[in-house]
Amino acid sequence: MKVSIYGAGRVGVSVAFSLLHYSIVDKIVMVDIDKNRSIGEAMDLLHASGVFKYCNIYAGDPSDIIDSDFVVITAGRAQRPGETRLDLLIDNVKIIKSISEDIKKYAKDSIVINITNPVDVLTYLIWEFTEFDPRKIIGTGTTLDTLRLRTLLAQQCGVSSASIHAYIIGEHGDSEFMPLSSATIGGVLLRDYCADCDMKAEGSSTCLDFEKIVEEVRTAAYKIIEKKGATNLAIGAITAKLIDSIWKNEKRVWTPSVLIDDVYIGFPAVLGRNGVEKIVKLKLVDEEQELLEHSKSVIRKAIEEIKKVLETKNSPLDRISGT
Amino acid sequence: MKVSIYGAGRVGVSVAFSLLHYSIVDKIVMVDIDKNRSIGEAMDLLHASGVFKYCNIYAGDPSDIIDSDFVVITAGRAQRPGETRLDLLIDNVKIIKSISEDIKKYAKDSIVINITNPVDVLTYLIWEFTEFDPRKIIGTGTTLDTLRLRTLLAQQCGVSSASIHAYIIGEHGDSEFMPLSSATIGGVLLRDYCADCDMKAEGSSTCLDFEKIVEEVRTAAYKIIEKKGATNLAIGAITAKLIDSIWKNEKRVWTPSVLIDDVYIGFPAVLGRNGVEKIVKLKLVDEEQELLEHSKSVIRKAIEEIKKVLETKNSPLDRISGT
Amino acid sequence: MKVSIYGAGRVGVSVAFSLLHYSIVDKIVMVDIDKNRSIGEAMDLLHASGVFKYCNIYAGDPSDIIDSDFVVITAGRAQRPGETRLDLLIDNVKIIKSISEDIKKYAKDSIVINITNPVDVLTYLIWEFTEFDPRKIIGTGTTLDTLRLRTLLAQQCGVSSASIHAYIIGEHGDSEFMPLSSATIGGVLLRDYCADCDMKAEGSSTCLDFEKIVEEVRTAAYKIIEKKGATNLAIGAITAKLIDSIWKNEKRVWTPSVLIDDVYIGFPAVLGRNGVEKIVKLKLVDEEQELLEHSKSVIRKAIEEIKKVLETKNSPLDRISGT
Amino acid sequence: MKVSIYGAGRVGVSVAFSLLHYSIVDKIVMVDIDKNRSIGEAMDLLHASGVFKYCNIYAGDPSDIIDSDFVVITAGRAQRPGETRLDLLIDNVKIIKSISEDIKKYAKDSIVINITNPVDVLTYLIWEFTEFDPRKIIGTGTTLDTLRLRTLLAQQCGVSSASIHAYIIGEHGDSEFMPLSSATIGGVLLRDYCADCDMKAEGSSTCLDFEKIVEEVRTAAYKIIEKKGATNLAIGAITAKLIDSIWKNEKRVWTPSVLIDDVYIGFPAVLGRNGVEKIVKLKLVDEEQELLEHSKSVIRKAIEEIKKVLETKNSPLDRISGT
Ligand SMILES: NC(=O)c1ccc[n+]([C@@H]2O[C@H](COP(=O)([O-])OP(=O)(O)OC[C@H]3O[C@@H](n4cnc5c(N)ncnc54)[C@H](O)[C@@H]3O)[C@@H](O)[C@H]2O)c1
Ligand SMILES: NC(=O)c1ccc[n+]([C@@H]2O[C@H](COP(=O)([O-])OP(=O)(O)OC[C@H]3O[C@@H](n4cnc5c(N)ncnc54)[C@H](O)[C@@H]3O)[C@@H](O)[C@H]2O)c1
Ligand SMILES: NC(=O)c1ccc[n+]([C@@H]2O[C@H](COP(=O)([O-])OP(=O)(O)OC[C@H]3O[C@@H](n4cnc5c(N)ncnc54)[C@H](O)[C@@H]3O)[C@@H](O)[C@H]2O)c1
Ligand SMILES: NC(=O)c1ccc[n+]([C@@H]2O[C@H](COP(=O)([O-])OP(=O)(O)OC[C@H]3O[C@@H](n4cnc5c(N)ncnc54)[C@H](O)[C@@H]3O)[C@@H](O)[C@H]2O)c1
Repeated sequence: MKVSIYGAGRVGVSVAFSLLHYSIVDKIVMVDIDKNRSIGEAMDLLHASGVFKYCNIYAGDPSDIIDSDFVVITAGRAQRPGETRLDLLIDNVKIIKSISEDIKKYAKDSIVINITNPVDVLTYLIWEFTEFDPRKIIGTGTTLDTLRLRTLLAQQCGVSSASIHAYIIGEHGDSEFMPLSSATIGGVLLRDYCADCDMKAEGSSTCLDFEKIVEEVRTAAYKIIEKKGATNLAIGAITAKLIDSIWKNEKRVWTPSVLIDDVYIGFPAVLGRNGVEKIVKLKLVDEEQELLEHSKSVIRKAIEEIKKVLETKNSPLDRISGT
Repeated sequence: MKVSIYGAGRVGVSVAFSLLHYSIVDKIVMVDIDKNRSIGEAMDLLHASGVFKYCNIYAGDPSDIIDSDFVVITAGRAQRPGETRLDLLIDNVKIIKSISEDIKKYAKDSIVINITNPVDVLTYLIWEFTEFDPRKIIGTGTTLDTLRLRTLLAQQCGVSSASIHAYIIGEHGDSEFMPLSSATIGGVLLRDYCADCDMKAEGSSTCLDFEKIVEEVRTAAYKIIEKKGATNLAIGAITAKLIDSIWKNEKRVWTPSVLIDDVYIGFPAVLGRNGVEKIVKLKLVDEEQELLEHSKSVIRKAIEEIKKVLETKNSPLDRISGT
Repeated sequence: MKVSIYGAGRVGVSVAFSLLHYSIVDKIVMVDIDKNRSIGEAMDLLHASGVFKYCNIYAGDPSDIIDSDFVVITAGRAQRPGETRLDLLIDNVKIIKSISEDIKKYAKDSIVINITNPVDVLTYLIWEFTEFDPRKIIGTGTTLDTLRLRTLLAQQCGVSSASIHAYIIGEHGDSEFMPLSSATIGGVLLRDYCADCDMKAEGSSTCLDFEKIVEEVRTAAYKIIEKKGATNLAIGAITAKLIDSIWKNEKRVWTPSVLIDDVYIGFPAVLGRNGVEKIVKLKLVDEEQELLEHSKSVIRKAIEEIKKVLETKNSPLDRISGT
Repeated sequence: MKVSIYGAGRVGVSVAFSLLHYSIVDKIVMVDIDKNRSIGEAMDLLHASGVFKYCNIYAGDPSDIIDSDFVVITAGRAQRPGETRLDLLIDNVKIIKSISEDIKKYAKDSIVINITNPVDVLTYLIWEFTEFDPRKIIGTGTTLDTLRLRTLLAQQCGVSSASIHAYIIGEHGDSEFMPLSSATIGGVLLRDYCADCDMKAEGSSTCLDFEKIVEEVRTAAYKIIEKKGATNLAIGAITAKLIDSIWKNEKRVWTPSVLIDDVYIGFPAVLGRNGVEKIVKLKLVDEEQELLEHSKSVIRKAIEEIKKVLETKNSPLDRISGT
């Protein structure tokens, strides 16, 4: 099995490193414009592979992605402290466009997993640029946010995240939210579970402040970036897990960024060997439906804006390309 | 980590064999009155351990269970074709009593997992015989039935059982049932998921017949016993998984047989290093609550009956003991 | 990935059960003339798969083996107490012939792993019957015996079998032996390691009696069969491991039964996705070379004898077929 | 199980990240003087843990290392491009001294694994500072170099590193070497294996240039540091593997830095729950013995030098401390 990773930066390397632990990959190609970086990382990864199973890892050119089973995109500039994810857009579209052309040319049967931010907008554009079946193009969407939510709930409630079924859905960004009406722990609605819990705070009806915990998830990236300059480990771990799960055709439900109506957005979907096997028809109460629509409109607006820029003659994008 | 297993029969051996794959156990003691059987199985298991991690496995006497972290009970007569699980009761109580005395004497800090049928009744008696903290004594309860349900749903719905949250609860026997009102796939109520599903049969509101699938679970053991004489693989796999999960303190929700009011019965509970960490307050609709009460009464009656026999002077049990 | 297993007996089921723990197989077909047995075992295995990853397991007919990646042969009569492995020959050739025809017809791209005894002779015949590339046809050979040797050494020496490089080679039978001249622990010749060891017995130059330990390996099957009627767990575990390792293209050295000159015999070989990637040119001292030649001649004689029977008109074999 | 890691830099984080994949740790404490860095990394690691098993990870103070099962030391300045490992010495001794005092105070039953360079010298000093049983104090020594050697051989020879028994021993530095006289592939001396190999280059007696491959290992760190500024992935993966293997009491042979005569140096040793269970008496030919003695003397000299500095009143070390 072959995986190509665009971007040998913090995220790309973390994906590759985590993936080695599954002993399922035979070849990993790291593609980065910073050739030194990708050569160095590939050497270190190659040595690490010996702990698990030999894997042929090297720094390659776009033509080396040929016959990849998966192409993972992490190329781009990372979020800077204080900056919103949408600010990154203009800078990263150009990169994404050229990568899409590579994939179309060399790896048209691969499953494409985009991580580069703003992930929903760029995944949409990759879909447009490649013209691939949308089931084969996904973004990591709110898989990371859902992971964070479940880990925080696991920590607070003393229950394994495997028994917690709560999602973060919507834009991987400020408009994301938890649909509380369907969130459960061990088959009990989260709301009821908390109301009944012995750990409940004095004078409160639940021990958890749901809004606070979602806020914690929503701002986790900002906080981590403030402290260490980037987030890379959890996104690396969850992306490697997605690849393992898709490769083994497990058909689990995740919250990747998938095409719903006219946008790519984080929503529960079954992933298997064919990519998106099914989008889950999650029931939302009115208030949640509104939040979803709002989140869609945020993404839609960003797509429209960037499309306008793309269509403009002598657009900044062209000029960047022209450089 | 040390595990002692009473009964080196089909089930006991399957538990041990599956457990080796986790590379977490240092010592396994197989205790069986049929010494030849346990010596042979222990030799074969010892050789198998080399594929994973060396584990000291041998056929031992009750005193060899000393300092066990887990004691697994599979000793007893297996269900015969046509026979109900309750029929086994009288025959197995005597065995259970003497094993309980061993555990009390040699392994009072262990977590005890009972598999011998009728599992709910015998687990209750083990609790009474040992006088241990009920959190340290569990039966496999409906963990096997829940596993079967999820596997059958996974097969029919094309979704990983990891994303299916449906339980079988109650007596591990004919009165068990699925609380449909809380069963979900990917966060959607099973009922709604099915109604919306593309695979839905013509002229039907859902593609699944819920009663039929539960009936399939309920009768699975009978069918397998009819075909191959016993069931041992799935129970072996799920018990080994329980041990791994408890040992790693994962705190997942399972449906072991746990003490609820005055009976041991299959019900959702969080299992960790302390045994039963929490019993989940599953919400049941009236009809389900009735089914649970009925199931409890079935177990209660069996316990009362056996207690009467136990209290009778010159009871069949004494006479058996006296032999 | 698809595996077909002929024989849903003790060995076939142990292979399938162990294999589930690797979460790499999508489909397992159990083929047995005893349809009840295979249906029962397939149901039990299917439920067990839910603990790991859903796997479609069913009792099939020969035509169901189509497109298998691996075909494992365990069909046949098992060794009876006291009986040598060669005694089984006549009974099992007929079975093997018909299975070879199935494989030729339905699964010509599969890797075939034979376990049925006498494993070296029958693997040779499968190769002749199928006329496949010999690299795609292997027997389990002395992989089980090597496993046993390493596990016993691990136990006695307190060193992981992963750090012990000692083999049992030759016929999977009474003429097998350990080439002591190349056996090492942690890079030290076994002989030297033992001579230097603190655990060395009083008045002895080493603590291990090499002949005794090889004798223990050689007679392990007899002893286990005497105690429990068959050996199935260690062979199940090692075969599943072989499949996992071949599938992942690990290219480890094992001691399968491979074609050397005119016989199939247990010898170190590198196994990968192409089957036998390379036969290792193990250096043997004269005495060991003689033992190997002797072992080859034992197998050669058995093959010749059976070929004579096969060529005889109205041979017992034909008559069996005619029944 | 609890692991404390000094240094939340590139290496420390890679150890923690890899370790999460084994699902064996309940608590990880990251101790770094750069509190922001350790808080940020701990948050990211905590989220990542949810993919495997919840693990309580946080940025702690020295007193938080209490009751650790393992203390891993990665604190210090990393090697700069061009700089030899010994150059780092003076800068890192002070750090090591204060950490040793923490361990002595809070975690006297832990196994200590030192990674900070120069690893052999500093591990020796940790042993002196703590006055612990030397079996409980190890350095990663040449485990990383052995890993690199085996991975490169695996790549060139098309054989799994699990079947390659070759070591790099001596100082983790320029004087390290491969004892070719005991190196084997699949039980065949590496020298013979290569001479017999089909891949052998024209006009050459072997296809491998042994000196060249060892040189590649010896200079790997320099090359990687030149390209990406540090090496962290392979050392992270091998250290996590060591922890897993020790915790499971596997008793494999590795090449950690262990106390031999009056120095700590990379040499084959069996590691288990007690730390160093046994030092393997590897046979060396004269030339190799000389290389080992030379390597020892390099380490010895560095230790002596630093001791002189330590003993000097108003030593640079005191003055640094005084700042
Ligand atoms: N979706 C998520 O949940 C999530 C989480 C974390 C980070 N991210 C995003 O991942 C991206 C990468 O983050 P990072 O921290 O790894 O950044 P980084 O700066 O460490 O690495 C990015 C790498 O991309 C390379 N690159 C730039 N242009 C390229 C091109 N045309 N082709 C190939 N490589 C190219 C750079 O040389 C650099 O090595 C960012 O967009 C970040 O916002 C997303
Ligand atoms: N709870 C479940 O979900 C579940 C599933 C399958 C089987 N079971 C039950 O598991 C039990 C074992 O089934 P099996 O198929 O392994 O039966 P088995 O007959 O193959 O094995 C039972 C073993 O217990 C031994 N034994 C009897 N008395 C003993 C004693 N006093 N001490 C030690 N060993 C003793 C017997 O010698 C025998 O080897 C049965 O009660 C069966 O109904 C339960
Ligand atoms: N090579 C080794 O190291 C090793 C180790 C253990 C056992 N074995 C051998 O494995 C074989 C199986 O042993 P077991 O204990 O599983 O025996 P078993 O009797 O339990 O199972 C054999 C199965 O094969 C079935 N069978 C017979 N003819 C068949 C046919 N034509 N097609 C399909 N299925 C057929 C039988 O119905 C039975 O279910 C024996 O030959 C035994 O000697 C080899
Ligand atoms: N032995 C090997 O095989 C091997 C391999 C790679 C790296 N290394 C060594 O590992 C060490 C760490 O390398 P790195 O790349 O992670 O460096 P790094 O600079 O990224 O991280 C070192 C961390 O240690 C912290 N630190 C400094 N003083 C401290 C103290 N007193 N207490 C706690 N934390 C303190 C720093 O703040 C920093 O975060 C270096 O010495 C390097 O040479 C060894």
